[in-house]
Amino acid sequence: MSTRPGLFLTFEGGDGTGKSTQAALLEQWLVAQGRTVVRTREPGGTDVGDEIREIVLHRRGHIAPRAEALLYAADRAHHVATVVRPALARGEIVLQDRYLDSSVAYQGVGRELDAAEVRELSLWAAEGLLPAMTVLLDLDVAIGRSRLDESRTRYDRLEAEAAEFHSRVREAYLSLAADEPDRFLVLDASRPIDELALVIRGRVSALLQ
Amino acid sequence: MSTRPGLFLTFEGGDGTGKSTQAALLEQWLVAQGRTVVRTREPGGTDVGDEIREIVLHRRGHIAPRAEALLYAADRAHHVATVVRPALARGEIVLQDRYLDSSVAYQGVGRELDAAEVRELSLWAAEGLLPAMTVLLDLDVAIGRSRLDESRTRYDRLEAEAAEFHSRVREAYLSLAADEPDRFLVLDASRPIDELALVIRGRVSALLQ
Repeated sequence: MSTRPGLFLTFEGGDGTGKSTQAALLEQWLVAQGRTVVRTREPGGTDVGDEIREIVLHRRGHIAPRAEALLYAADRAHHVATVVRPALARGEIVLQDRYLDSSVAYQGVGRELDAAEVRELSLWAAEGLLPAMTVLLDLDVAIGRSRLDESRTRYDRLEAEAAEFHSRVREAYLSLAADEPDRFLVLDASRPIDELALVIRGRVSALLQ
Repeated sequence: MSTRPGLFLTFEGGDGTGKSTQAALLEQWLVAQGRTVVRTREPGGTDVGDEIREIVLHRRGHIAPRAEALLYAADRAHHVATVVRPALARGEIVLQDRYLDSSVAYQGVGRELDAAEVRELSLWAAEGLLPAMTVLLDLDVAIGRSRLDESRTRYDRLEAEAAEFHSRVREAYLSLAADEPDRFLVLDASRPIDELALVIRGRVSALLQ
């Protein structure tokens, strides 16, 4: 198996759009075919990353916007260097919940920093690593929020932002997908879970050929 | 006093070169003249910064080099936005132990990342803020180390690096000073404390005119 090339796939979209559900279904399918899968996420996913995640998501009080963007980038740098690249080098498939498109959409657009600068920062952190495919689960902001309301008792800092913020993030995601149509698979996240999983498998099958 | 312009001064150099001592003497002298002084440091200097400092300096285990550089930059972004710029806007004098030259010297050269990229990262974090003057306390690495041995019982992660690392950092500082002779005041830190303090006061007096 170590002679197979690794594959890096990311899941993007707002909260409540089903990223974890789809990543889990894809993992099951890949494992059933004998592939080794690493499921991971940002922020977090490493011990250093978990400490950074605590600062970024659960701290009270103000964090300067550039500091927030740099903390996400630091988490990414450590995660890519110590988890993602080693797994890809072993020929494994990495399924990751959120990556640089989250930074560009949330920090670059949502926080009103320059989107191109935030992207450049992320790519520097990751030494240029881009996913072979990014699944964007696109959903009306109000629907995503109502799904979250059913499942959570407590919001983190970003989840607690106003609906207007999340609408701008959604638009930013769609704009990123339009810029890179070959990398992005944009799906209507209101469609049935099994139907979405089938479309994702089809694209992954093609990538694995 | 709020009509006076603020002034941003930084102290750089290896460990054990007397940065804190000189900053304290300059603070006394400025306060005696009725100036308001903010003494601060990086990493740390804010609550968010202290948490980052814990990760960077006191954590066991490996941190990816780019993650380390990004954590320092995150600390800087928050510190500049919430401490330094507000103080300068109030017309105060900010005396800071370590700033972007430390990042370039330690992470850029010592850790073998690209020095120009680390500098650019820092300037992005600080939205371009440069000190009016930087005091570089230059000292033979062996002398600085013997001073530290007398005063410390425990080294942090960077202090524990080998002498060869600290020699490269010293060369990096001198090279930065040569590139910006107007900003840097390079002093031989083996000279008597009072003599050094007198030279620093002379330059600060000129800046305050």
